[in-house]
Amino acid sequence: MTEPLPLGATIGILGGGQLGRMLSVAASRLGYKTCIYEPGGDCPASHVANYHFQKSYDDAEALRAFAEAVDVITYEFENIPTSALDILEAHRPIRPGREALRVSQDRLTEKTFLNDLGLKTAPFANVTDADSMAKAVAEIGAPSILKTRRFGYDGKGQARLKTAADSEAAFADMAGAPTLLEGFVDFSHEVSVIAARGIDGQVACFDPGENVHADGILRTTTVPAKLTAGQRMDAVLLAANILNKLDYVGVMGVELFVTAQGLIVNEIAPRVHNSGHWTQNGCTVDQFEQHIRAVVGLPLGDGQRQNDVVMENLIGADMDRLPELLNARDTAVHLYGKAEVKAGRKMGHINRITRDT
Amino acid sequence: MTEPLPLGATIGILGGGQLGRMLSVAASRLGYKTCIYEPGGDCPASHVANYHFQKSYDDAEALRAFAEAVDVITYEFENIPTSALDILEAHRPIRPGREALRVSQDRLTEKTFLNDLGLKTAPFANVTDADSMAKAVAEIGAPSILKTRRFGYDGKGQARLKTAADSEAAFADMAGAPTLLEGFVDFSHEVSVIAARGIDGQVACFDPGENVHADGILRTTTVPAKLTAGQRMDAVLLAANILNKLDYVGVMGVELFVTAQGLIVNEIAPRVHNSGHWTQNGCTVDQFEQHIRAVVGLPLGDGQRQNDVVMENLIGADMDRLPELLNARDTAVHLYGKAEVKAGRKMGHINRITRDT
Repeated sequence: MTEPLPLGATIGILGGGQLGRMLSVAASRLGYKTCIYEPGGDCPASHVANYHFQKSYDDAEALRAFAEAVDVITYEFENIPTSALDILEAHRPIRPGREALRVSQDRLTEKTFLNDLGLKTAPFANVTDADSMAKAVAEIGAPSILKTRRFGYDGKGQARLKTAADSEAAFADMAGAPTLLEGFVDFSHEVSVIAARGIDGQVACFDPGENVHADGILRTTTVPAKLTAGQRMDAVLLAANILNKLDYVGVMGVELFVTAQGLIVNEIAPRVHNSGHWTQNGCTVDQFEQHIRAVVGLPLGDGQRQNDVVMENLIGADMDRLPELLNARDTAVHLYGKAEVKAGRKMGHINRITRDT
Repeated sequence: MTEPLPLGATIGILGGGQLGRMLSVAASRLGYKTCIYEPGGDCPASHVANYHFQKSYDDAEALRAFAEAVDVITYEFENIPTSALDILEAHRPIRPGREALRVSQDRLTEKTFLNDLGLKTAPFANVTDADSMAKAVAEIGAPSILKTRRFGYDGKGQARLKTAADSEAAFADMAGAPTLLEGFVDFSHEVSVIAARGIDGQVACFDPGENVHADGILRTTTVPAKLTAGQRMDAVLLAANILNKLDYVGVMGVELFVTAQGLIVNEIAPRVHNSGHWTQNGCTVDQFEQHIRAVVGLPLGDGQRQNDVVMENLIGADMDRLPELLNARDTAVHLYGKAEVKAGRKMGHINRITRDT
């Protein structure tokens, strides 16, 4: 059994966005310091972290210095260059580990991994060239969706095929990036499980939340989600299955489609997740603290749901509603300190407590 | 009506302890930056603040630079040298204002202010020399307690008189510091009201908490406090009375003795208060956010109590219980990041949710 990091130890966080910001706050609550690695200046996480390495991911010397300045390394996004991970891992443990990153950085690897675990995913076919595109459309049909295998987020790197006739345009859109064609899933709604696994192998899942997206971006998460007791149990068990298989340490977001044929895994994210923000006002220990506990080797905390919550993202012009939201009842406002409001940019979120549980 | 500070503005905080730390976190949640002024290095607040002026309070140039680097100034302790306040105030607004500091920095001024407002305090007499000490003992009697007029906290700067015979020793103890003699109050328990007042004059009080001290240091605060409906109303009204009289902006802690003859004001603190830490896990908007909202000119938030909470301070060797507390149900742990555990030092606190409300 690994001893937890002593109080006052420093947690290195790769990425300086809002997730790193809220991880830093949670770390401070447990008496730890944080050090952010993020090329951008004035980033949300740097406002609340002890240190900020404003360096590039291809700066080997800076990466080494960062690793030596911290006691453990975690991250708030999954698309970290492999070369950077190699340097970092030579000096300090990375949690969650490399296998989780390898699997989740590539949609093809991820879906194959999930299927191998016996979990259902959307039907998919690898697309490498015009030939395989034609074969994929023949196999998967349309409507379907062509997605880059790597670096997609918030609906970016995707092209829809309404009919097979859109095939060529969609393929051209991707400009030669490795892609896969995904079939549509006939689902009633999407839920996600925020699951945590400690260094000791203990697994704890937050109550599943129900997600509503618009334009590829999460708009709201509502807990509790509409699920039968059986579905709820399935969701938690399949999440635990994924975490155990990866010998995972930390918090993972698992997005699931709810269908008449059972739960289908949409995607996994090896990090704290937007659909888990409700836990800040719904639980004694939230997803950010749960992640910090895991990566420093502390036992997972009590993530029992205390309140029903609706989390709503504040995106772009939603910020105009701020005066009203600051006056609203039972509503906690969480802003990210981003200097500029832009269309489609996540500026903050609110958690509205709808009922004590 | 003053416009609220724009998002991204910087709040200057005098003092770098745990209160400054939790104020910084609350400021970040609302999208503000913080800048700490604190002579000590590696202080709790500096871990989560954007900037740290590690400078002395008699460094006029540093004080000016600090004031110019921030948009508004607040504080986490009341014993700020007047000379420093003069420099700061010439450049930026200080909230809460000077009058609150003047009144609360000196026990004699404070008690006189409260009595002038029609509020009851413990009987007291000013002590300036051996003569006035003899007169004070004759008037107030014993048991009683000799307190320095300034710079007392956590039971420091106090000497008890069991009988009039202790008078000389107690006076000698104070080594010539200005003091006053306080009579004992026959109270059943102590409660405190955490009250907030916005720039617009709006007042909001958190539900009173019941405090238990040991060795002059707060040990626990329990909400709800044992109070009749009438006492609860009195407590809130008298707190509002104090804040309005001072044209106060921010959060104030008002400690009250509950007696058969009504509520007696023990002391007031012009800042967030240890007995308000329960609000972090008992309310949607906690005392730290309420204070930040006030000083930046935002409307006060919804401080309605959502849960029953017992707050317990972790003092010195209480930290040995940490492994057990991290595993406890319904228990939120808040640590301050202090490097060294010392007897009597506040290292953190827990909020245990005892019931949904």
